[in-house]
Amino acid sequence: MLRTEETICAPATSGGGAIAVIRISGAQSIAICDRIFFPSERRIKFTEQQGYTIVYGEIHSGDDIVDDVLVSIFRAPHSYTGEDSIEISCHASRYIQQNILKLLIKNGAVPANPGEFTMRAFLNGKMDLSQAEAVADLIASESEAAHKIAISQMRGEFSDEIRILRADLLHFASLIELELDFGEEDVEFADRVKLLEIVEKVLTVTRELTSSFSLGNVIKNGVPVAIVGNTNTGKSTLLNNLLKEEKAIVTEIPGTTRDSIEDIAVIDGIQYRFIDTAGLRDTGDIIENIGIKKTHEKITAASLIMLVADVNEGITALTGVLNGVRSQIAGKDKKLFILLNKIDNDISGQRNDFKNAISLQKGESMLLISAKTGEGLDELREAISSTIESDKIISESVIVTNIRHYRALSQVTESLKRVKEGLENNLQEDLIAIDIRHAIHYLGEITGEITTDEILGNIFRNFCIGK
Amino acid sequence: MLRTEETICAPATSGGGAIAVIRISGAQSIAICDRIFFPSERRIKFTEQQGYTIVYGEIHSGDDIVDDVLVSIFRAPHSYTGEDSIEISCHASRYIQQNILKLLIKNGAVPANPGEFTMRAFLNGKMDLSQAEAVADLIASESEAAHKIAISQMRGEFSDEIRILRADLLHFASLIELELDFGEEDVEFADRVKLLEIVEKVLTVTRELTSSFSLGNVIKNGVPVAIVGNTNTGKSTLLNNLLKEEKAIVTEIPGTTRDSIEDIAVIDGIQYRFIDTAGLRDTGDIIENIGIKKTHEKITAASLIMLVADVNEGITALTGVLNGVRSQIAGKDKKLFILLNKIDNDISGQRNDFKNAISLQKGESMLLISAKTGEGLDELREAISSTIESDKIISESVIVTNIRHYRALSQVTESLKRVKEGLENNLQEDLIAIDIRHAIHYLGEITGEITTDEILGNIFRNFCIGK
Repeated sequence: MLRTEETICAPATSGGGAIAVIRISGAQSIAICDRIFFPSERRIKFTEQQGYTIVYGEIHSGDDIVDDVLVSIFRAPHSYTGEDSIEISCHASRYIQQNILKLLIKNGAVPANPGEFTMRAFLNGKMDLSQAEAVADLIASESEAAHKIAISQMRGEFSDEIRILRADLLHFASLIELELDFGEEDVEFADRVKLLEIVEKVLTVTRELTSSFSLGNVIKNGVPVAIVGNTNTGKSTLLNNLLKEEKAIVTEIPGTTRDSIEDIAVIDGIQYRFIDTAGLRDTGDIIENIGIKKTHEKITAASLIMLVADVNEGITALTGVLNGVRSQIAGKDKKLFILLNKIDNDISGQRNDFKNAISLQKGESMLLISAKTGEGLDELREAISSTIESDKIISESVIVTNIRHYRALSQVTESLKRVKEGLENNLQEDLIAIDIRHAIHYLGEITGEITTDEILGNIFRNFCIGK
Repeated sequence: MLRTEETICAPATSGGGAIAVIRISGAQSIAICDRIFFPSERRIKFTEQQGYTIVYGEIHSGDDIVDDVLVSIFRAPHSYTGEDSIEISCHASRYIQQNILKLLIKNGAVPANPGEFTMRAFLNGKMDLSQAEAVADLIASESEAAHKIAISQMRGEFSDEIRILRADLLHFASLIELELDFGEEDVEFADRVKLLEIVEKVLTVTRELTSSFSLGNVIKNGVPVAIVGNTNTGKSTLLNNLLKEEKAIVTEIPGTTRDSIEDIAVIDGIQYRFIDTAGLRDTGDIIENIGIKKTHEKITAASLIMLVADVNEGITALTGVLNGVRSQIAGKDKKLFILLNKIDNDISGQRNDFKNAISLQKGESMLLISAKTGEGLDELREAISSTIESDKIISESVIVTNIRHYRALSQVTESLKRVKEGLENNLQEDLIAIDIRHAIHYLGEITGEITTDEILGNIFRNFCIGK
């Protein structure tokens, strides 16, 4: 995996569109391109061009012209990877892209592995590991909140926080280990109270960071919302209405296709994944029914459940579903919205009967809506937004979105808890030192100050080709 | 449509991939970008940068950083459009692209129409109309042959041919019209024999060009091949085997998706569209059967029909289908391959019975294959290749692929035929002059020397956004 001598190449854009970009990086980038690229202005010597300049010309394959292209040149260390790099901007024909890649490979380049450009940027000190990971998050970001967190992480704000903690612990370790050196002489250099203060300070921060992960994770992947209810209560109309705006945005960028786009919407900068769970029956025995196991799984996975009822259906029909959902989410940290739908058609004023019949429990709200006319939907959007602690995103607090970071921080927390106990119980210095070293190690893994080929392999394997 | 004062912007790459490019063109390009782009090196004055240079920096939306980007600058007239132009290379997040586009629009740019960048290149004299059309063909090209024709056309080889014809006819017209000016005096300046020679020379070329369209059209859109045969004769296995190589290539470029990729293959640089027509019955009355109307349509549309038979099925079963196909393609310029499949399992040597029982007609071939083991498939590929006059593509002859050009050339041919008749019958100069003017007009429409907003609208409407 960790080859760095080779010059790598890969398409950096996806199929479709008007133009495509092919990226080359490594010591031989300019020399390899020089063999296949011919500037239109004959007086231009390609290999002598400065970095951050563009040359117009032709890619040749023997006597054949493959394409008219623009070639951008970057010279080490002033490039994304820190190496000599080239970007070829060609017409977005699959045939042309394949031919240019084949020519590059024939002339000495090798196909890049997923994430290899960014991995080289890391290995060449252009960014640390959590910044490199943020590049992938940034590319995948679909909402304002996900984008905000990714760009802050890419620009090193998360790394800075981790580095401060690590510096504190290194200071701590130096004090403890000084004692160890003089262990035989029973000297106590470190003020235990001071040490305890440092550990508690770091612990507070790591605890905050790990607890931010549940928010960070839903921001990154979208907040799961299950829509349940009897048939014909208007679930699909509601979903369509909530997604309307988003769909319009999607079509702005040509060639954008996603699986089941219909169930993703961004409300107030947060992405929500709406999961339509058809097939709930109007009886109380949903738990027993094997056929609706999937619905249960979706309710279990959701942070918010929206139970849609028709004001014209009987109260029994609603309470049947409601009891089923309530028993399933009991004791779990989930919100439940009971949506009394079709209020545009509430002839006999049933909405009041519903309100009287159902007493709301903790975490539950009841809203009156008409999915058809749109009445009450603004209030619904606001209610959905309010389920997320979006103030945390707006403020400058650092949020953990990466499971690898979460796991490392959890290890740090565990180690520091042991350090704290050790200090409180006057444990031997050498035992305390082991735990503090653990904590430092795991913090270093986050930013990549400590790393292994295996960790790097795992991280960059999930990148796309060309990044 | 023909706005040229506005500064336009659009995404030039499609969704997905690692990076995305946003393109801006027009007099205000640099000024608009300067409002949202901040170079990382503070000493760089963005608006003073030379053309063909790149600046690294940040896109800001108020206090928020939208992305770290590379900005390429092109100054009029040395750009694709001939205007001041900018390309912003950002991370390929949909959210980021939308935000940058929104910022550009907020600061004075307007969203580009499909093909508007290329239309501006045409209007600014950077390319003629048939070259502009070739840009779209080049982007769509999926095979060596389609690519070769598109790039030759984009580089003006087709236009040069047309311009030579037009110059000849203009010379002709000037001679004829000189006569007209002195018409009262009954002077005959033009040598009729010489005039006839010019017309015949041009006619020969336009006839060659129009007749090349049937080849050009299949090269551009793929040669349609219908696969027919009774059920279980191995049609699907054959198709999978023929497409194997192509499929592997498709997956090389990430994010490339196409509708029904499974039925397109490139053999010897030509693209073929294989149409699997299930449902033929083993009786002779296929013509009567309404349920297989679709199969008939596909046979009608195909240039080549591959009839797959199982050597172990009865000869009657094959001849039933064969007679049906033969009656349908009778008198049409189509090839028919009878493929005796499953020769790996031809225990009783039935292949010889088949060969004896079926006497091949004109345009028909019989091949022995095993779709399962691959035996005979190289020969089949060669046979498929040989149905296309690929020597015409390899040679430097110009091939017409565009239906607009074909129609215009047909008009030219018709006009010139009338000119020729007129000359031969000593028709009045003014009548001949009308037809020669027609021919010149239609040649001018091809290269865009004569054009209307309507023609331009029709052409560029079919381009993609960002091109």
